[in-house]
Amino acid sequence: MNGNLVEGAKRVIADLRELAAMTSDENGAQRVAWTPVWQKARDWFAAKAKEAGAEVTVDVAGNTWAKIPGNGPEAVAIGSHLDCVPNGGWLDGALGAVVALEVLRRYGKGTAPRHTLYAVNWADEEGARFGRSLIGSSAASGTLDIAEIIHRVDNLGVKLTDALADHGVKVDELLRAHEQLKEKNIKAFLELHIEQGPVLENMKKDVACVYGITGCERHYITFKGQAAHAGSFPTLMRQDAFLAAAQASLAFKQIALKYDAVCTVGKVSVKPDVVTIVPEECVISLDQRSIDPEALAKMHAEAQAVAAKAASDQGVSVSWEKIWAIAPTIFDERLTKLCQEAVKEESGEATTVYSGPLHDAAEMAKIVPTVMMFAMSERGLSHCKQENTADEALETAIRAFLRLADKVVA
Amino acid sequence: MNGNLVEGAKRVIADLRELAAMTSDENGAQRVAWTPVWQKARDWFAAKAKEAGAEVTVDVAGNTWAKIPGNGPEAVAIGSHLDCVPNGGWLDGALGAVVALEVLRRYGKGTAPRHTLYAVNWADEEGARFGRSLIGSSAASGTLDIAEIIHRVDNLGVKLTDALADHGVKVDELLRAHEQLKEKNIKAFLELHIEQGPVLENMKKDVACVYGITGCERHYITFKGQAAHAGSFPTLMRQDAFLAAAQASLAFKQIALKYDAVCTVGKVSVKPDVVTIVPEECVISLDQRSIDPEALAKMHAEAQAVAAKAASDQGVSVSWEKIWAIAPTIFDERLTKLCQEAVKEESGEATTVYSGPLHDAAEMAKIVPTVMMFAMSERGLSHCKQENTADEALETAIRAFLRLADKVVA
Repeated sequence: MNGNLVEGAKRVIADLRELAAMTSDENGAQRVAWTPVWQKARDWFAAKAKEAGAEVTVDVAGNTWAKIPGNGPEAVAIGSHLDCVPNGGWLDGALGAVVALEVLRRYGKGTAPRHTLYAVNWADEEGARFGRSLIGSSAASGTLDIAEIIHRVDNLGVKLTDALADHGVKVDELLRAHEQLKEKNIKAFLELHIEQGPVLENMKKDVACVYGITGCERHYITFKGQAAHAGSFPTLMRQDAFLAAAQASLAFKQIALKYDAVCTVGKVSVKPDVVTIVPEECVISLDQRSIDPEALAKMHAEAQAVAAKAASDQGVSVSWEKIWAIAPTIFDERLTKLCQEAVKEESGEATTVYSGPLHDAAEMAKIVPTVMMFAMSERGLSHCKQENTADEALETAIRAFLRLADKVVA
Repeated sequence: MNGNLVEGAKRVIADLRELAAMTSDENGAQRVAWTPVWQKARDWFAAKAKEAGAEVTVDVAGNTWAKIPGNGPEAVAIGSHLDCVPNGGWLDGALGAVVALEVLRRYGKGTAPRHTLYAVNWADEEGARFGRSLIGSSAASGTLDIAEIIHRVDNLGVKLTDALADHGVKVDELLRAHEQLKEKNIKAFLELHIEQGPVLENMKKDVACVYGITGCERHYITFKGQAAHAGSFPTLMRQDAFLAAAQASLAFKQIALKYDAVCTVGKVSVKPDVVTIVPEECVISLDQRSIDPEALAKMHAEAQAVAAKAASDQGVSVSWEKIWAIAPTIFDERLTKLCQEAVKEESGEATTVYSGPLHDAAEMAKIVPTVMMFAMSERGLSHCKQENTADEALETAIRAFLRLADKVVA
């Protein structure tokens, strides 16, 4: 093992700043997957990995793998993604990919580690251009539905198939990445990421072990009433679809509080959307998340009940359309314990949280023992150029993560 | 006075059906002001008026006046509008204009009535093409703001000035209609209209005296919070602009119930309107109406208070922008009594209501003693081809209105 933790953490931050300077403009980071700026970031990652003594390959899904052979037959993978949303921040994804380069440096050019080490840069985590996130990691986990993405185009009309082909990825061969992953015999996956939320800042913590990722129930809810003249229709005779949606949305918040979870109404549209007409239709989206599968099921059932009551109270009908659902992910118990130890050794306390947002680790957790670590995010901001974590906090998190890597790899 | 009430009412309905057949297609009535179909309706009205023995003129605002000279120096005007919304109904406006033709028939070609009688077809009550309603009647009342309309264009880019010029109306001379009105020495204005609401049907009444028109306070309300990730932001830390709007909108309904009035949130928009993002901004419209000016002022003040509380409860800010306001109109006391008598004589009860929608009578009431009468509307439907009133109910209302005309004109 080479270098010490303090110097290693500073090197990671220097690398992150080098990457940001190379791939950002005045509006933030521009490493959108399958674009020239992202390609520049991938090439930079591969060059840094080679410098550290690793052998670099790209799998059929566009994921970059940098390998340091170990003494045993098993392997450990560490990484995250270098792609970002348009006008993104300098840490989302990049932190976890760049820290993996430092892990390579700790184990390259010296005595071989116990396990083979892979640093991985997952392709297209954000789905910012074609609307499907986790493309690289879900191809590797074998869960990607090719039919669901093959006809997608971006906002300029460019086909997903063409954009991926420009980066050497054939869409109909994407799932072979799963075979390629199995050949690597990976027995652990570790990911460091910024929190992208305000919980750690609120707890005054720089770093935490992440023991799982919330599940999600996501639906559209349509309330249908009767349009009526705003002047001539008495209040008690109205069938106001918007008021039903309003009543339901406030009740969803109470469900979130009851289960210490979240319920978000993010999209709202009313018809006919005229100042002088009582709304005849209101469609809202509801995104419900919990780390507890039983709680999530209850939250969804209670949401249906309160929406039905709101509809009944306002004299309208209600119907549900499922957008998407995913069960909660609970990470590997052994790795979670090691992660808590590493966090405690560096920060004095084994702070443990769960993640609301999805990550590549959710895909890996389906097939490989996995754990994540979070660095705090200032004001919870992410997906914007204001995204930041002060160097001191960032260094604490990086050192804790390097400790975790040592526990798993060495 | 010629003819009897029963035959007169049947003639009015026959005329209405003749007009509908001439000016409708499979989607409903198409008598949009300042179009060829509307011109056909105006010409038909003028021809029918001449048949009844009246002298027909058009004022500088495009209002058609049909005159039967009386014995005294004073005049009575009766009428409504022949224009309608696109895909409109057969009764909105037409009922009141066509019943005025029957009043002409009762007093034309015989002994001169006590007062001079005018049947009037007001121009562009709906404002369907250029967005300003009551153009003809507000020009006549002298309240029209020319600067506010002169630059308007329709959805196809046609200028209001050109569309009116095609029908002989010069926009910069519109307000001379007020001088022309004063020369007529009108001392009473009567208007029969369909209710366009469900109140009379609910009361099982065919006809009612209308004693006034509600005032209106109309605003946009903007709630501003903070966008946040639907997965990573804890419920209690959110500043959800939509939930503030939802809470306020439900409270507005309680205000409406408290004052036996109406509050309508008809337009709703959220930003960024994304399933996974807590709304940072929500703009709603609020239309509040009451017949009681004190109640209307209190309703507006209480709406501001509940919106402020909703904003505070959800951790967001709130601001108001006035769209429009008008004070309630209370009709002339003597005419209202005569109207109640006529309604009671025909229907057995002096049913009296107020109007939520605006009418040409609101403009006339500013300068001339005025009253309205309502015929019931099936299911409260209007501004659509389904708009209807069964013949029997319609005949009752027409007979009651002819009685009112007799009381005022003869």
